[in-house]
Amino acid sequence: MLTLLSENRSFAGIHRRYRHESAVLDCAMTLAVYLPPQALSGETVPALYWLSGLTCTDENVMQKAGAHRLAASLGLALIAPDTSPRGPEVPGDPDGAWDFGHGAGFYLNASEVPWARHYRMHDYVVEELPALLERELPLNGRRGVSGHSMGGHGALVCALRNPGFYRSVSAFAPISHPSRCPWGEKAFSRYLGPDRSRWSAWDACDLMASAPERLPLLVDQGLDDPFLESQLRPDDLEEAARAAGHPLQLRRQSGYDHSYFFIASFIDDHLRHHAAALLPQG
Amino acid sequence: MLTLLSENRSFAGIHRRYRHESAVLDCAMTLAVYLPPQALSGETVPALYWLSGLTCTDENVMQKAGAHRLAASLGLALIAPDTSPRGPEVPGDPDGAWDFGHGAGFYLNASEVPWARHYRMHDYVVEELPALLERELPLNGRRGVSGHSMGGHGALVCALRNPGFYRSVSAFAPISHPSRCPWGEKAFSRYLGPDRSRWSAWDACDLMASAPERLPLLVDQGLDDPFLESQLRPDDLEEAARAAGHPLQLRRQSGYDHSYFFIASFIDDHLRHHAAALLPQG
Repeated sequence: MLTLLSENRSFAGIHRRYRHESAVLDCAMTLAVYLPPQALSGETVPALYWLSGLTCTDENVMQKAGAHRLAASLGLALIAPDTSPRGPEVPGDPDGAWDFGHGAGFYLNASEVPWARHYRMHDYVVEELPALLERELPLNGRRGVSGHSMGGHGALVCALRNPGFYRSVSAFAPISHPSRCPWGEKAFSRYLGPDRSRWSAWDACDLMASAPERLPLLVDQGLDDPFLESQLRPDDLEEAARAAGHPLQLRRQSGYDHSYFFIASFIDDHLRHHAAALLPQG
Repeated sequence: MLTLLSENRSFAGIHRRYRHESAVLDCAMTLAVYLPPQALSGETVPALYWLSGLTCTDENVMQKAGAHRLAASLGLALIAPDTSPRGPEVPGDPDGAWDFGHGAGFYLNASEVPWARHYRMHDYVVEELPALLERELPLNGRRGVSGHSMGGHGALVCALRNPGFYRSVSAFAPISHPSRCPWGEKAFSRYLGPDRSRWSAWDACDLMASAPERLPLLVDQGLDDPFLESQLRPDDLEEAARAAGHPLQLRRQSGYDHSYFFIASFIDDHLRHHAAALLPQG
């Protein structure tokens, strides 16, 4: 059951923040939904799930991406889950770091103690949350997924692991190859344990080879992103897609960094990419 | 002299934060500038000054208004000053409140001790800052002014007091009649002293009667704004404009509140309103 926290009229649609008790994560979760005007007048609409990056909450994309304008015009709902389980009962990074634990769930199901009890963001994002929202809101069950950085990784992995569940996928500056970058190695070694063979099930570059579905993938990457080489590794994604014959449009954007100014600059292209798969073509 | 703090590519233009020593305010100030792509290729461009509301800094409008997209397309620079003098040497509200002092400069020149030394936001916004920016950045000296809430009041008052200085003016949910609302009465009685006859020089409703210039004024006001009746008083502005024969388009927007979701929903209309006065018509 969703408890309404706040709502704001936006581009003739409505932005809402909700709280609910997540059985999968075993804690209370906050999320945000943008419903376009079409959803307020009796129609059901498709939903684009946006998975945010390290340290973010539901608020970043809703406030900073400038996505409501075109979502309203197209008739797309936007769904922004939080980036991890939260709360005093949820263990965070033992050193208080921002790249693990709270705000850093990495959209996987943890197998290791003490993380496995709460850190099940994959099942939350792909199972519990869509089921809840499609029951309670005017959504038609057509879904796309996108995200930024850690959430770009999440979008790729959720789509690659769940053929048929999404009709479209894209990402901004995704952590493309988490098994081979410091952020991913830190998170995977704790959430999944030291056996690297178990990491492949959560790594887009590894999943791509045997993916049973090949949704066309749109990725934007800023070339002035400070995390480009060390953490994001778009070349690895490009090589994995080439080897697998996976359709990938990787756009290297000169001068852009890792911020929401970069996302806002290209969000409309992503919304149109999703709308082409999610909406009836006129 | 401007010291660059950060920059982000945005919609093929650039968002920059600067710091400088303000002689008028007698403290260091941070501000943000958005330069559209045209300004990066040798042209000079007009500037829209955005005056933010209570508690805000330069960051709110740049991150949340979704204004870069159309500003880039039109070729408009956006300038976002801070909302007050800041720093340990600048006295704030004695009770630590958010509606006076730091973040609450009200775009006036204070006359009373201890405020008069630093709180001179009118002269900063209308004199020091444009002179500095037009010297150091590719701006052509054509200026518009807009703002939100306290900054909407600021936009109206700066335009009404300085005929010829701006070519266009608009506001979102302005504090229209500060002499007659709790926020304004608190601020004016401290910055300007108890003699209410001295408040009129900083009150749009009072200035309108004798304004020597009648720039057409666009105002948007959400009807679900929690501050509508007590603080903003758009009916007073409408009555003052009617009495003075001042051209006012006051749009009452059903369902909208006081947030940046409201601003984002209508910012494009305001940018076009300013562009019509600031740009050569094609």
